[in-house]
Amino acid sequence: MEAIIGLDIGGSKILGALFTKDGKILTRCKKKTKGSAGVETVLNQIFKVVDEVLSFDEKIELLAIGAGAPGIIKQDSIIEFTPNLPFRHFNLADVMIERYAVPFVLANDVSTALLGEWKNGETYNKKHIIGLFFGTGVGGGIIINGELYIGSGVAGELGHMVVKKGGARCGCGAKGCLEAYSSKTGIQRMLLKKLKKGRKTSLEIDRNHPLKSSELIEAYKNNDALVVEVLEKAIEYMGVAIGNYINIFSPEAIVLGGGVMEAFDELMIERVIDNARKVAMLGMLDDVIIQKASLGDDAGIIGAYELAKTFKIK
Amino acid sequence: MEAIIGLDIGGSKILGALFTKDGKILTRCKKKTKGSAGVETVLNQIFKVVDEVLSFDEKIELLAIGAGAPGIIKQDSIIEFTPNLPFRHFNLADVMIERYAVPFVLANDVSTALLGEWKNGETYNKKHIIGLFFGTGVGGGIIINGELYIGSGVAGELGHMVVKKGGARCGCGAKGCLEAYSSKTGIQRMLLKKLKKGRKTSLEIDRNHPLKSSELIEAYKNNDALVVEVLEKAIEYMGVAIGNYINIFSPEAIVLGGGVMEAFDELMIERVIDNARKVAMLGMLDDVIIQKASLGDDAGIIGAYELAKTFKIK
Repeated sequence: MEAIIGLDIGGSKILGALFTKDGKILTRCKKKTKGSAGVETVLNQIFKVVDEVLSFDEKIELLAIGAGAPGIIKQDSIIEFTPNLPFRHFNLADVMIERYAVPFVLANDVSTALLGEWKNGETYNKKHIIGLFFGTGVGGGIIINGELYIGSGVAGELGHMVVKKGGARCGCGAKGCLEAYSSKTGIQRMLLKKLKKGRKTSLEIDRNHPLKSSELIEAYKNNDALVVEVLEKAIEYMGVAIGNYINIFSPEAIVLGGGVMEAFDELMIERVIDNARKVAMLGMLDDVIIQKASLGDDAGIIGAYELAKTFKIK
Repeated sequence: MEAIIGLDIGGSKILGALFTKDGKILTRCKKKTKGSAGVETVLNQIFKVVDEVLSFDEKIELLAIGAGAPGIIKQDSIIEFTPNLPFRHFNLADVMIERYAVPFVLANDVSTALLGEWKNGETYNKKHIIGLFFGTGVGGGIIINGELYIGSGVAGELGHMVVKKGGARCGCGAKGCLEAYSSKTGIQRMLLKKLKKGRKTSLEIDRNHPLKSSELIEAYKNNDALVVEVLEKAIEYMGVAIGNYINIFSPEAIVLGGGVMEAFDELMIERVIDNARKVAMLGMLDDVIIQKASLGDDAGIIGAYELAKTFKIK
């Protein structure tokens, strides 16, 4: 039976799945990444995941492997830099092709997730899609003419658009990036700043532990005044960014995902869109499909399958 | 002899040129647009320009006509809306093809100018190019994979990226757009605002008459304190926008044009780039070719020739 493997190589775990050629998941596997143990160990963990899903059926004819990983991935499947994995300028394709003798294609994990969401929602027949993922940071992905767009190598840093010149300091070193306002890290920073000034909240916040999106949204819905104030600001900035990206790309669809966004209810998303409408030109927003991400943790493996299918098996 | 016509249909004048297939200009023509006289009159002016350049040689074998016009141009060469011309949802292609029996292709004038600059500078062999034109407004153009990118129809409103949320009111209705700070209109507005507060300048400024870029730059070079202050601000915002677009597109090159930018000297452009470097991530700016527009008024007709050549005669 012909099959394709999709891998999601994350900082803490590696997810893998064996797909039929038309996208049905046959089996899955999850292993720890063990990033701190070095390159050889991580490679072995990847091999274990692939070998385990392949063992599903001895008559599997593997067509290709697709994968997503965080960080800067070059066009030729080289991991240039990745924050939580030991790879530096590492050609993962060489290793994988030597071992499995099938085409291998790798892309940035956010781009891969966008591919997954794109092909599995009402956007599947659209060609120009922007993805914005609001989680710990703000990730972005761009699909143009039905293909991932990476420009000269690293396009899609959509969280690092300055939307408030001279504004809040961002982790990237610049000031006023979208990520500084609308990521979980940015929201936590804004909350801590207000707490320092004597404001109160029902949330337990500790500089050293990341907020949970679910707790944040719960406090918002319970009308915690400080959380409402800070989240409304995050929502405003999300809207500005979406309006900007509509003016820039005139996309057919925008996919909104990530932990923070996935915890939003419909009313909150409506508020995001209301803010975007103030920035988008000439009713340009009205024809754009705004699609909330729906695949959760599966977006990575499904996107990796789509990547392998689109780029290696035409 | 095989030839291509390039047209630049502007609000006040129509420029046309007859090109050899490989891009040499054989003859030119310029006529008033007469936009206020209505659609028929403008069409007649366009026909006159085309007929006149065609009369250059009776043995001309016309291959195609390319054209640029301001406003919203749809993918199928329909002028959806244009601010200074009488066309509304007008299919110019139908009219031109019926009269001249050759392929006709139309694009937005800024996009067309970008095509011209792209093919006539050190960027000619690059595939991912962003164009920013700082004039009365701020226009933009996007070339991806060697083709004009217009998304679902009207991509490239690069002047209407909010870079200062809650900032200066822009002509588009939003607040804090790049255009509100770095266009001639924005610069004039900032100057008038400061004059109202009692500041002085050597420039003669009148709300009803547009500033000349040359006078503005002259006052800057003569250290007119107010002009220096306002232009430095415009330069900072230009830098922020360029940094943003590098983070978004990871382009191979950026073309900078328009009256304001063309009046800048090298030191001023260096200051723009210094500001961009503060925003662009990870040394992403270093590999980007920054090319100052060099074709002046010819960018439109040369770009229209390139448009016809690229899209209609492969």
